[in-house]
Amino acid sequence: MIYFDNAATTKPNERALKSAEKYLTEEFYNPSGLYKSGYNLSLLLKEARKNIVSLVADENKFSCIFTSCGTEADNQAILCGGKRGNIVTTLGEHSAVYEAVNEAKQRGIEVRFANLNSDGSVDSEHLLSLVDEKTSLVSVIHVNNETGAINDIADIAQKVKVKNKFTLFHSDGVQAFGKINFRLNGDIDLYSVSAHKIGGIKGVGALIKRKDLIIKPLIFGGGQEDNLRSGTENVFGIKCFEFAAKERLSGLNQAYDRILALKILFCRLLDSTMFDIISSENGSPYIISVIAKGVRGETILHEADDKGLIIGTGSACSSNSSKRYSRVMLACGLDKESADGVLRISFSTESTEEEVCTAAKILNETVANRRRLMA
Amino acid sequence: MIYFDNAATTKPNERALKSAEKYLTEEFYNPSGLYKSGYNLSLLLKEARKNIVSLVADENKFSCIFTSCGTEADNQAILCGGKRGNIVTTLGEHSAVYEAVNEAKQRGIEVRFANLNSDGSVDSEHLLSLVDEKTSLVSVIHVNNETGAINDIADIAQKVKVKNKFTLFHSDGVQAFGKINFRLNGDIDLYSVSAHKIGGIKGVGALIKRKDLIIKPLIFGGGQEDNLRSGTENVFGIKCFEFAAKERLSGLNQAYDRILALKILFCRLLDSTMFDIISSENGSPYIISVIAKGVRGETILHEADDKGLIIGTGSACSSNSSKRYSRVMLACGLDKESADGVLRISFSTESTEEEVCTAAKILNETVANRRRLMA
Repeated sequence: MIYFDNAATTKPNERALKSAEKYLTEEFYNPSGLYKSGYNLSLLLKEARKNIVSLVADENKFSCIFTSCGTEADNQAILCGGKRGNIVTTLGEHSAVYEAVNEAKQRGIEVRFANLNSDGSVDSEHLLSLVDEKTSLVSVIHVNNETGAINDIADIAQKVKVKNKFTLFHSDGVQAFGKINFRLNGDIDLYSVSAHKIGGIKGVGALIKRKDLIIKPLIFGGGQEDNLRSGTENVFGIKCFEFAAKERLSGLNQAYDRILALKILFCRLLDSTMFDIISSENGSPYIISVIAKGVRGETILHEADDKGLIIGTGSACSSNSSKRYSRVMLACGLDKESADGVLRISFSTESTEEEVCTAAKILNETVANRRRLMA
Repeated sequence: MIYFDNAATTKPNERALKSAEKYLTEEFYNPSGLYKSGYNLSLLLKEARKNIVSLVADENKFSCIFTSCGTEADNQAILCGGKRGNIVTTLGEHSAVYEAVNEAKQRGIEVRFANLNSDGSVDSEHLLSLVDEKTSLVSVIHVNNETGAINDIADIAQKVKVKNKFTLFHSDGVQAFGKINFRLNGDIDLYSVSAHKIGGIKGVGALIKRKDLIIKPLIFGGGQEDNLRSGTENVFGIKCFEFAAKERLSGLNQAYDRILALKILFCRLLDSTMFDIISSENGSPYIISVIAKGVRGETILHEADDKGLIIGTGSACSSNSSKRYSRVMLACGLDKESADGVLRISFSTESTEEEVCTAAKILNETVANRRRLMA
């Protein structure tokens, strides 16, 4: 099986699992326990928090709240960060932000959406024009999860702060963290990340935040995570995340170059008479969105699956929502027929050139075959 | 090491870990994926949901929302279930409910607290007197996490519904599920459970709910869990939970009898000139709260730890909150001096008679020694 749906989830890093295994067996204690074995775990969590933050930010200026997933981190940023006036965001957000701002709207907050460019990146001039003295929060996805488009969040955040220095700036960094080279600057207040997109396990995320920023909890209780996220800490998951993140970040640039070569190869191998490529050359090499012209993406996905290739159509996270067309693809300017043919191919650090060649071959053959049947 | 802090967390069930391991290795897919390997996982989750619910309720009438922990389940019940008028709860709730109702208060909901009896159970007459036509939610902990007191939630729920049939009834069942024999009746609308208190892993809980009850999500996004809890499902954790729950529930009564014998033995072995027992005979045998008279519980905890016995003082979950005295113990009528000496001993199905004898000996010696030093 060739697995090219790594933007949906990655195979857990075996070394990370192995290194953290003991937190499921001998060291299973509650980090809130006052006894030594509990207290020691609380120290390990502190260390993990610092280690993860230091990979993308100055740990003297930023810290993080461990959450149960990227979605929860996004929800806390939006629902606890955008509590008055208006929230400005983009039409290219992951559902975790999109549905959270819709909930904020229900609670009386005005929500303003900035338009996208055709590759899925935000029209930053439009976004900035929406920011005013009543904007409490701006949220811009770092790497678009459907197209791979990279938003220059450092630049956008800086310009937002010039317009309104009291506005909080949040970015959903789930598809960026551990994949593209980036460090958080002081204009970015909140940054969401997820473990299972980079070889960690499902059930762990983090909301990285400026240390001096006060934000309310989304989940209340025993006061864990500096009183910002209650619930017994998932020590095993957090330690896996820490390990996987360190490994990903240490080899980030080499991996980026290798995956970029795979992206270029893949785009070259796809038959251009049958496929249009949506993703831009400047996007993250880990995500490629294409349109299989004149056929349904879902049909191709299933036929490819039968032939040993796993890919996605748009965001796996919204596959339950019975919405046939991706709202992000429509916001990129696609008509419904094209949006119907969208496929997402997403790589991991473990993807190989051989897999890319086979995958392109399978996709070319499958679309050609489907077209013959339809003719 | 003797581990008697099982109310804080239990050692994960090795068989559960083994049986679910493959969801971290071969079957690591995203259950929202449209391809076969993803779809198959979504079927397994459906099955797990049904299996877990069926252990304590009629699966035709109840279903469950998988959450990241018991705390999250409690928060969803309180913050999404109690949205108007007043919430009636008890002074004996876990922080997850207590802090959630305090948050509801901040949002303009009136909160009314029912008094406790000396063993930590709720004064149900007082509770019922607080319920009126404006009560949107009643929340009563099933088994008190500090004293083990069991509230007759079936009876209380039925009486609440007689007073106001529109009131939702929620119970935090974290210390009851898998430990005491109980089935949900139709007067109970919402019931929170946690995996890591019964041999599952940290990071998984569930909110069991009446199937026809409509409740809002706490976390918004991709629409997982029937649109009631978004975020990629923690398949490994859920499958561990399912396995552990099935095993616990199938041997529940035998385990109960065995642990009850351990509780009786332990209480008999403790030197009554040095210890007062708070927990009643009718409480859950899994939790015993005692007062080490005239000494600080925390001191005894640390000395016992050095001697190879791990126990708790009150709820581990609130150990970060820098509150010296347990609010629950004070609500049981303890004065501050007594509250200072509280220790919680909590068993698991793996606890043995030999461990109980050694633990009682360590505690008797430790308190006697401490008293000598203080004399």
